[in-house]
Amino acid sequence: MLGLSNVKMLAEGKVVQVEWADGVRARFHAIWLRDNSPDSETLSPGNGQRLVRIQDVPEEVGVKAATVVDDARLEIAFLPENKVVVFDAAWLRLHRYDRPSNAAKAAGWTNETIVRWGKELEEKLPVASFRGASENPGELRGWLADIRRYGVAKMTDMPVESGAICRVVELFGFIRETNYGRFFEVRTEVNPVNLAYTGLGLQVHTDNPYRDPVPTLQLLSCLENSVEGGDSVVVDSFKAVEILREEAPDAFQALSSLPANYTYTGTGDVMLKSKRPMIELGPDGELLTVRFNNRSLGPVTDISFEQMETFYDGYRKLADIMERPELAVTFKLQPGELFIVDNTRVTHGRVGYEGSGSRWLQGAYADLDGLRSTLAVLEQKGECHVV
Amino acid sequence: MLGLSNVKMLAEGKVVQVEWADGVRARFHAIWLRDNSPDSETLSPGNGQRLVRIQDVPEEVGVKAATVVDDARLEIAFLPENKVVVFDAAWLRLHRYDRPSNAAKAAGWTNETIVRWGKELEEKLPVASFRGASENPGELRGWLADIRRYGVAKMTDMPVESGAICRVVELFGFIRETNYGRFFEVRTEVNPVNLAYTGLGLQVHTDNPYRDPVPTLQLLSCLENSVEGGDSVVVDSFKAVEILREEAPDAFQALSSLPANYTYTGTGDVMLKSKRPMIELGPDGELLTVRFNNRSLGPVTDISFEQMETFYDGYRKLADIMERPELAVTFKLQPGELFIVDNTRVTHGRVGYEGSGSRWLQGAYADLDGLRSTLAVLEQKGECHVV
Repeated sequence: MLGLSNVKMLAEGKVVQVEWADGVRARFHAIWLRDNSPDSETLSPGNGQRLVRIQDVPEEVGVKAATVVDDARLEIAFLPENKVVVFDAAWLRLHRYDRPSNAAKAAGWTNETIVRWGKELEEKLPVASFRGASENPGELRGWLADIRRYGVAKMTDMPVESGAICRVVELFGFIRETNYGRFFEVRTEVNPVNLAYTGLGLQVHTDNPYRDPVPTLQLLSCLENSVEGGDSVVVDSFKAVEILREEAPDAFQALSSLPANYTYTGTGDVMLKSKRPMIELGPDGELLTVRFNNRSLGPVTDISFEQMETFYDGYRKLADIMERPELAVTFKLQPGELFIVDNTRVTHGRVGYEGSGSRWLQGAYADLDGLRSTLAVLEQKGECHVV
Repeated sequence: MLGLSNVKMLAEGKVVQVEWADGVRARFHAIWLRDNSPDSETLSPGNGQRLVRIQDVPEEVGVKAATVVDDARLEIAFLPENKVVVFDAAWLRLHRYDRPSNAAKAAGWTNETIVRWGKELEEKLPVASFRGASENPGELRGWLADIRRYGVAKMTDMPVESGAICRVVELFGFIRETNYGRFFEVRTEVNPVNLAYTGLGLQVHTDNPYRDPVPTLQLLSCLENSVEGGDSVVVDSFKAVEILREEAPDAFQALSSLPANYTYTGTGDVMLKSKRPMIELGPDGELLTVRFNNRSLGPVTDISFEQMETFYDGYRKLADIMERPELAVTFKLQPGELFIVDNTRVTHGRVGYEGSGSRWLQGAYADLDGLRSTLAVLEQKGECHVV
């Protein structure tokens, strides 16, 4: 256990500087410490939710005394309340914000859990068996961690029956039901309401950019696949965006600062429209979501005349990068197999097919928050087992 | 019908300038026109999806000839393809992007369908009856349009039975299922996993900011409400943000440019975390989403030491504005009543209650894309009837 070696009040009690036994230091503001006090009047012991409003924290809050207790805890006496609260040293370490990584970062950065990839992933595409992920929490945890890391994974040995895809979603989260249903058929139709339901090749794309909020996970399972062609392709758009930023910074700037429009009106009872950039960044420049879909882009109408050519130049450059062979991971789904993509990040497409044989896939949407929550719970339990 | 009076080629065929009979002019780029060509080789006649990739549009695309046909259509011959495509004058008018409104706007702007409100809405809170909205498309259309405009509406005369809230969602869209279920109980519990399940007052808030994507609609229906207190409060956070921007531009700047963190771990099987700003703007400064929730904010850890005080100052100012009486619309739900809020915009809360009597609400989440799609379809049908 990493203890505290020193504590110091700064800025007339508005700030406390903490030093751990390994020499790492961090400053904390009195307002932050008071707002995050773990005592039972501030945080509900049962559910961890905060019981006070920010207005219940005095604006003039300061620290009267800060003391290290047993090397492992920090005791703070707050003014003007004269309230004494004890913080755990490990919790403070985990939640310190006075660190270089919070300085300004280059636009397009991603957090350390994200690993970008190209064609080399083809040989080591993450995979789990349905039975293994269902019965073994460790295998499920590994599979979900791979999805967080790479944004894509396969599953094998699924029941070859209609709707089994929903049972995969139940392993970690919840179906996002849409106008396409809880799950939907992807096979050649006579009057297709979506080009996915044809034998045409499909450029790699993220699904449903015309929806807001966009579904953040997509699953595609295979029930039949005896056609020539119809191979699946996935590309890491975060990798493509990184290349774009390096090779054409102006294009990256354009696509991340100009709003695009997406639309779908494939059936008479649906008129979906959204307005979002192709490259969505957080306010601190973090790369959050890519929306890339030639079938449902536009008409783009919320960009000024002066910037429209820049937008199209950037779009063409990004599209070219998306099709580079060295970025494409290709595989052919067999009956009983499924792949899942983080639809905010990994584009997918398919090679065209025709002729004899049949190809029958089913698709479903879900969301990342449920997946990340299940993974976090599994990881915490895993740690407990080790201890 | 508004026809075309003139057409002119500019920039050596890279741009076409169109003039309508009322004198309005707009320029279109050749690349934009080609990418949005409505011919059956470019757009699928069946479902409106684009059949070509941007790479299929020649980079050197230009206009060889542009001709007005019958005052109502624009015929374009594209180079180098020598492809002739006919555009509808009304479609061009609707989708023109060469307009002053696409110039830079002040951060925090919203589109013209949004009407901000304060306490005055209490006297004219939009309302529909369940039966009316179920049986009369015009009443449903009006109710949905009010939700788009104000972000809040009531419904009356619902079946007073558990789960009826799902039938309201089915009128326009789809349930967003979460760890709380397809719908959830909001009443006093002995060991509440969420402070909502107590008799405590709740500061106005948006729901589930710890979820990403956040549910964009929330519904709360009433089955019993015989307690003293327990009144519902709603506040237009877009109004609050507008006031913040006027009174404290630095606070607006801080909350829209610094990422906050939200967390929920109320039950052992859920660990939800998100990182998003309190005030989320689009890349063109459009106000998109407010996340405001004192119970589930933080610890905030992705802001630098230097900016943390600015963040807390802004948060306090926004919280103070959120509680101004002149912004609060208050009402007491009766059994058989429901209210719906746009959870990206309208905060809701409640007055505390205790003592005898019972209060039993049920809640559910859904998403705006489904609602907007249903509304757009109803509006289009409405227009067809008028014609």
